Amino acid sequence: MSEKRKVALTGDRPTGPLHLGHYVGSLKNRLQLQDVHKQYVMIADAQALTDNADNPRKVRENVLQVALDYLAVGIDPAKSTIFIQSMIPQLAELTMFYLNLVSWNRLKHNPTVKQEIKQKGFEESVPAGFMVYPVSQAADITIVKAEIVPVGEDQLPMIEQTNELVRHFNRIYKRNVFVEAQAIIPKIARLPGTDGGAKMGKSLGNCIYLGDSADVVAKKVKSMYTDPGHLRVEDPGKVEGNPVFTYLDAFDVDTQKVEELKAHYARGGLGDSVVKKYLNEVLQAVLEPIRLRREEYAKDPEAVMEILAKGTKSVLEVAERTMKEVKEVMCIDYFQ
Amino acid sequence: MSEKRKVALTGDRPTGPLHLGHYVGSLKNRLQLQDVHKQYVMIADAQALTDNADNPRKVRENVLQVALDYLAVGIDPAKSTIFIQSMIPQLAELTMFYLNLVSWNRLKHNPTVKQEIKQKGFEESVPAGFMVYPVSQAADITIVKAEIVPVGEDQLPMIEQTNELVRHFNRIYKRNVFVEAQAIIPKIARLPGTDGGAKMGKSLGNCIYLGDSADVVAKKVKSMYTDPGHLRVEDPGKVEGNPVFTYLDAFDVDTQKVEELKAHYARGGLGDSVVKKYLNEVLQAVLEPIRLRREEYAKDPEAVMEILAKGTKSVLEVAERTMKEVKEVMCIDYFQ
Repeated sequence: MSEKRKVALTGDRPTGPLHLGHYVGSLKNRLQLQDVHKQYVMIADAQALTDNADNPRKVRENVLQVALDYLAVGIDPAKSTIFIQSMIPQLAELTMFYLNLVSWNRLKHNPTVKQEIKQKGFEESVPAGFMVYPVSQAADITIVKAEIVPVGEDQLPMIEQTNELVRHFNRIYKRNVFVEAQAIIPKIARLPGTDGGAKMGKSLGNCIYLGDSADVVAKKVKSMYTDPGHLRVEDPGKVEGNPVFTYLDAFDVDTQKVEELKAHYARGGLGDSVVKKYLNEVLQAVLEPIRLRREEYAKDPEAVMEILAKGTKSVLEVAERTMKEVKEVMCIDYFQ
Repeated sequence: MSEKRKVALTGDRPTGPLHLGHYVGSLKNRLQLQDVHKQYVMIADAQALTDNADNPRKVRENVLQVALDYLAVGIDPAKSTIFIQSMIPQLAELTMFYLNLVSWNRLKHNPTVKQEIKQKGFEESVPAGFMVYPVSQAADITIVKAEIVPVGEDQLPMIEQTNELVRHFNRIYKRNVFVEAQAIIPKIARLPGTDGGAKMGKSLGNCIYLGDSADVVAKKVKSMYTDPGHLRVEDPGKVEGNPVFTYLDAFDVDTQKVEELKAHYARGGLGDSVVKKYLNEVLQAVLEPIRLRREEYAKDPEAVMEILAKGTKSVLEVAERTMKEVKEVMCIDYFQ
């Protein structure tokens, strides 16, 4: 059964290297997407700058790091188009036009943004650029006319806002220039941190990075949070909420073995160090080829940038075509 | 005494033809500016769309009308660079970067915007694009590095916000890419409407347009508001707040004659119809050459658009240079 080839958009903010949470929640999914669909992968440097305006060097350095992570996990430039957001001026143009179609109040009440403002502790000082980033995201999605957007569940209001803008734009300019996008939510949306926290986060110091050395991975696994009530090996241990088992669920293809380990741990007699040793083996097997590919690509950063330049060029062409239609229906197509 | 040649930016929203209010408050001033400074004149179609998103045809049609008005009053494409805002994508890019440097709250408290929201009856439904237009205006001003911006007094908070952004940008990116702009407030900032209202406004139906025929001008002058207490010719009349005299002050070069008329009117014995007849002569003398030039240019709209295309092309070059600096200091100058 062949599915119709659709346009997909994914991306990441280059504010730090990617970690296992990204891998499980998003990157793995892209490897499948690129085989079936036309996939664009955006390095969202402009979006990263909305709350890192005073630290542009950090964003710049992570553009290469994120690109290395992409190539390392197997995002294939022959199948996926990797590009740099700030290099596409049409995104800013389209964002400005969309801003006319959304009320100030609607922006204020975007649930994702409200949540993030709280997390980032912005309060009254939230930059306007951050407040409008859902509109900027709508431009990212629609400039390539993406039909599929893989996102975490917390990002659903973003897709909703995008589709509102699509309908509004098509309605007032009386032509279906844009298509609505469909959110795809990955099965394992979120990997807990090594500290058992709900989410891996750079600022939380609970991440295993795709570029971590074997030693660092082993050390991080060894110090992982488990069931704090599991004091002696013979005690029964809790599997639920135990990140060691969540990781095994996410990474071990031998599901039967994982079920046996869980049962053993639950009835007692299985030490944390044994399970962690096994998890380490599983993770090393996943991470080693990624690490090796990463090291290989890292030897020639110019070649990596060349890949980004090529992808960016191809998106520029698509963006130009889209904006030609946009400007036509908006009656700002002067000098034909 | 020669003044240093500076860069000046002026412009208008193409939402209707220009009227005597524009002439007195702004256009006349530009004729002097273009002789002394490097003047950019922007047709702000993108800004007009912020609150006319659903009426793009109106904006489009008025681009030509406003251009005709410019040429008719004597803005000389050999001295001034007339351009179309939406054709400069760098303006949208710079606006997006500036949005990261201004807090959401700061935007909300811009006095000019607050006032306009009230006037336009937006209340809670104000488009986000309208709320951010002061930031977009900062981009307009700074993309050409304008040092002089002629504005009405009510627009002073706009220049203040621009200069805040200039200082903020230069500080965090550690280079003086931008210069602060200086507001220039014209002597007669505001011409009352023919109905005696404080301001000429298209929606108020109290304007004399630069393109009005001689008959229409005569009719509009005849029906002008004067002193409602001045019932009989022999009665003393009020000069202050009487738009007929404000217009004479604005347009008649024979100031002695105007003073005599005022004195006569104030002591009684001078009929409104006599003063209006004189005002009509004065206005026709001002408007006739403008009207003739307008008619001449209107015969060849393609030539007018060619002027705009040429001006726009030259601004595109300036904008590209400015954005090269911007992207360099923001570390988003990839693929050198």
